[in-house]
Amino acid sequence: MGGREFDIIERYFAGYISFSPPQVILGPGDDCAILDVPADQELSVSTDTLIEGVHFPAGCAANMSDLAAMGAAPFAFTLALTMPAEDDAWLEEFSATLSRLVGKYDIPLVGGNLARGALSITMTVMGIAPKGASIRRSGANPGDIVYVTGTLGDAAGGLAILGQDKKATGHLIDRYYYPNPRLETGLALRGIASAAIDLSDGLLADLAHICKASDAGARIIADNLPLSTALTGAFAADQARAFALGAGDDYELCFTAPAGAADRIAEVARSTGVIVTAIGDITADDGVCLTDRAGHPLSAGQAGYQHFDDA
Amino acid sequence: MGGREFDIIERYFAGYISFSPPQVILGPGDDCAILDVPADQELSVSTDTLIEGVHFPAGCAANMSDLAAMGAAPFAFTLALTMPAEDDAWLEEFSATLSRLVGKYDIPLVGGNLARGALSITMTVMGIAPKGASIRRSGANPGDIVYVTGTLGDAAGGLAILGQDKKATGHLIDRYYYPNPRLETGLALRGIASAAIDLSDGLLADLAHICKASDAGARIIADNLPLSTALTGAFAADQARAFALGAGDDYELCFTAPAGAADRIAEVARSTGVIVTAIGDITADDGVCLTDRAGHPLSAGQAGYQHFDDA
Repeated sequence: MGGREFDIIERYFAGYISFSPPQVILGPGDDCAILDVPADQELSVSTDTLIEGVHFPAGCAANMSDLAAMGAAPFAFTLALTMPAEDDAWLEEFSATLSRLVGKYDIPLVGGNLARGALSITMTVMGIAPKGASIRRSGANPGDIVYVTGTLGDAAGGLAILGQDKKATGHLIDRYYYPNPRLETGLALRGIASAAIDLSDGLLADLAHICKASDAGARIIADNLPLSTALTGAFAADQARAFALGAGDDYELCFTAPAGAADRIAEVARSTGVIVTAIGDITADDGVCLTDRAGHPLSAGQAGYQHFDDA
Repeated sequence: MGGREFDIIERYFAGYISFSPPQVILGPGDDCAILDVPADQELSVSTDTLIEGVHFPAGCAANMSDLAAMGAAPFAFTLALTMPAEDDAWLEEFSATLSRLVGKYDIPLVGGNLARGALSITMTVMGIAPKGASIRRSGANPGDIVYVTGTLGDAAGGLAILGQDKKATGHLIDRYYYPNPRLETGLALRGIASAAIDLSDGLLADLAHICKASDAGARIIADNLPLSTALTGAFAADQARAFALGAGDDYELCFTAPAGAADRIAEVARSTGVIVTAIGDITADDGVCLTDRAGHPLSAGQAGYQHFDDA
């Protein structure tokens, strides 16, 4: 760590890197941080880079959402920041935001790197879950019900509105800028969900990942998609559905569970204060298809969206 | 993970990400990788960003060198790569190099991220050591002997030569491009070294970090610095010493140990095939000073280098 880098860290980040829960044996400032992973836990790890133009809280939410999808509890994270020049105003705002997120997610920053270059932020997040309890993409079985948390398409709606008016405000814009990764719900789904993924690329694409990993397919009942009144109020029904099916950045969870788990899932929804909606089921076929309420496949035109193959 | 990103990973990285030692419960391809940290081990974590112009193997060595300095064994790493456009030739060379390094360090790649942006590579490395056995910067005590591995200043000499002739070759240039992080030596020093750091910023700066963390000082006997014949053959004595004291990128280890450990350290040097040289001792004063063989402080002019305060 160079002297200048050290100064910046002391100035902007020392306040909250001193937050040191029991898992942090040694925090930042040595060659490595040292962490204590409890003996009965397994460690989840994910890395994501946010580049210029991506709003930081949303990017951070993407990382936390990866933990939520595993049913992992936040454990620690590292941050690598490159920036073209030392920009005090930017650093102050970034530091304040990061400090809020550290508190919100109760996750310690244990290491970092500052380098000069085009603006980019890479976070590596770590989470823990009891051994064998992490929820993978590969556990879905034909007959399982497909669920999603929250409402879909809101972030895409917010982004579309911002495209017309950069200063617009409201629920959809908040959903784009400040997604709420479903960490609590993910934890509560351990031992209940057979597979899970977070919705970063859009429902059809992400559900296709579950199907591919599980060697299965899925049928989604188009009319069951949970759409917010903010979304359906601002956009035509076809457009709202297209956002819900195809757009990313909602950071809700899509998960599967055996039909018999419906009561336990209703209890998870109640206890974590997040609506959970059954939107379809897992099939023995390949790929993801959309149907009407009677289970008849919709054509691409009817569905307002193209059939989406897995891969 | 977007479809395009997935294609690139499949094409360039699938070969060696299938390398899956016992600690990898789940490799890349899910929301997170899942790792099994043995119950009696603690986890070391470090993040570094290499930006355009930095040679990748050297950058990778910097990360591994952080593990070496902790006495940690390589456990797993993640990689976040941003690049301006998909460049097949670059990706092929990068992939081949990375594959070699995965083999050389016996460390699995467990997660990654590809994004479009200015070229940069961020690695997060994880290592393990028995609980309490990691070597920190803070354990040096007055009376301890200060040691370094290998020879110092070679990388700086190589870089200086490359500044004159980009196509130059030889030992010093190899030392700059292909540093050898002292992983084996770091492991062997567990339970022997009282403190350690890797030489990334230069001996005086890095030893000052040990002193600051240990609330102590150090005296270095200038004539004891281990200089390679390649370095002293290519540069005047003053210049060679200045490189050894002030230049980074050697990725050797600087460590401290009680005087009584000399025999065990000689055995570590023998068993790991790396020369280890006693260059001074830890004092109760602040800061790092240079002395002649009799222990008299050298002036900055005599030392060929400025006195270097800790911080």
